[in-house]
Amino acid sequence: MELYTTPDYSVRLDLARRLADRARELTLPLFANPGAAQNKGTVSDYDPVTQADMDAERMMRDMIRTDLPDDTIIGEEFDDHIGSGTWSWTLDPIDGTRAFLAGVPVWSTLIAVSYNDTPVIGLIDHPALAQRFVGHGGKAYREDGSGTAQIRARPCKDIRDIVLGCTEPLAMFSAGERASYEMIRRTARFSRLGLDAYGYAMLASGRMDMILEALLKPCDVRALIPIVEGAGGIITGWHGESPIHGGRVVAAGDPDILEQVYPYLRRAMDS
Amino acid sequence: MELYTTPDYSVRLDLARRLADRARELTLPLFANPGAAQNKGTVSDYDPVTQADMDAERMMRDMIRTDLPDDTIIGEEFDDHIGSGTWSWTLDPIDGTRAFLAGVPVWSTLIAVSYNDTPVIGLIDHPALAQRFVGHGGKAYREDGSGTAQIRARPCKDIRDIVLGCTEPLAMFSAGERASYEMIRRTARFSRLGLDAYGYAMLASGRMDMILEALLKPCDVRALIPIVEGAGGIITGWHGESPIHGGRVVAAGDPDILEQVYPYLRRAMDS
Repeated sequence: MELYTTPDYSVRLDLARRLADRARELTLPLFANPGAAQNKGTVSDYDPVTQADMDAERMMRDMIRTDLPDDTIIGEEFDDHIGSGTWSWTLDPIDGTRAFLAGVPVWSTLIAVSYNDTPVIGLIDHPALAQRFVGHGGKAYREDGSGTAQIRARPCKDIRDIVLGCTEPLAMFSAGERASYEMIRRTARFSRLGLDAYGYAMLASGRMDMILEALLKPCDVRALIPIVEGAGGIITGWHGESPIHGGRVVAAGDPDILEQVYPYLRRAMDS
Repeated sequence: MELYTTPDYSVRLDLARRLADRARELTLPLFANPGAAQNKGTVSDYDPVTQADMDAERMMRDMIRTDLPDDTIIGEEFDDHIGSGTWSWTLDPIDGTRAFLAGVPVWSTLIAVSYNDTPVIGLIDHPALAQRFVGHGGKAYREDGSGTAQIRARPCKDIRDIVLGCTEPLAMFSAGERASYEMIRRTARFSRLGLDAYGYAMLASGRMDMILEALLKPCDVRALIPIVEGAGGIITGWHGESPIHGGRVVAAGDPDILEQVYPYLRRAMDS
């Protein structure tokens, strides 16, 4: 029996969606009108992101512990809860806090469910875009007001054809990493910046071909894996290792193309 | 009698909105599903951006020439139409073509109306975000499904507090320009990339404080001016000169802060 056909799996897929629904209710009003929230605050440096982050994570943790008390919970804002079972949750209530503050709608809520430490359900919810991307059962889907559609990454065999993404090359790379990035960017068709998790969703949707980043947190990356892989893409560390611990991450819509870029990535990291 | 209270002005404000409405009908389906358009095309390198760009500009030109045959029309895709009157239109049917291709919803349609070569009406329409920003009569507004709201830039007197925007620092700056940008970025609170005209809209909305760019086309910049200025901000060239010819442009939500950054901008440009 495949894992994804079990009741244990489907109860968690259902709960992940409900967590995202509830998180939207908390985060979206603060995104649309952070000033109003700010004026209600009594502390002078009140930060609507921090507030939305903490409120949403606390709420999601409570929902998980009520329904599935044996599951481990790892989140950005609070201490890890180590459960007795084989299932774990990784939560990032607001990925893209800079986007959230600057009024840019690509920020998201990231939810991952892992079984024996392998991510098997991934969810990227974009409240301000009314779009959700979910990876489960070895496939990937976009869910929005008009329904659910399976998404697929696209083939791309030549580095000169890639649409490349990276959130902040000037802030996230060391000098050696930036040299790798620059070599690939100058060869690529074009690059697009400032996307956070939305870039991985566009890769899984066949709109972009490669995302190259560093300094990712484990909370950032786990939710992306079932979506990128479910769409037929690949996501690894810069040496081809497992990406689940974050750090330097590369994703490609076409698995074949990664063999062409690993040498670039290794060279600059050795310098 | 103020210009913006004249019938000549209001007929153009009304027409600008109708142009944007019609452009949405052409561009939005191609953004949502470029593959479908691609499969219908007979040319192998069919480009949905080029197609949407040309179709939308042709349609807007036809509408202007029908209603206001004496107005000058300057657009991205076709030759200038030099009219006999004092009014001119500047059209960019798709600003942010890379965003459009990569599935990122910040691309926009830019429409500017100038009187004696001074931009007096500016419109940024974001079809995929269902948002529109309009500057007219010395004020700026956001228009969306829930109505119209006046927007205002925010005060920010210290460079260390600014939220800085730039679409593509690695691709749009020369070495000297990039040095200026880097000095300001490292001093700023944080930066946010990949926004095209949406960054100027967020500056006018009080969510960002400074946008620093180069290589802008005249078609890119004219529509931004009445919106940034109508919100209480300022937009100039890097030497403080008029920005209407594009090139190096800096915008600030708080006019006072520009005096602090001009020395940075001049120094790197001299190197």
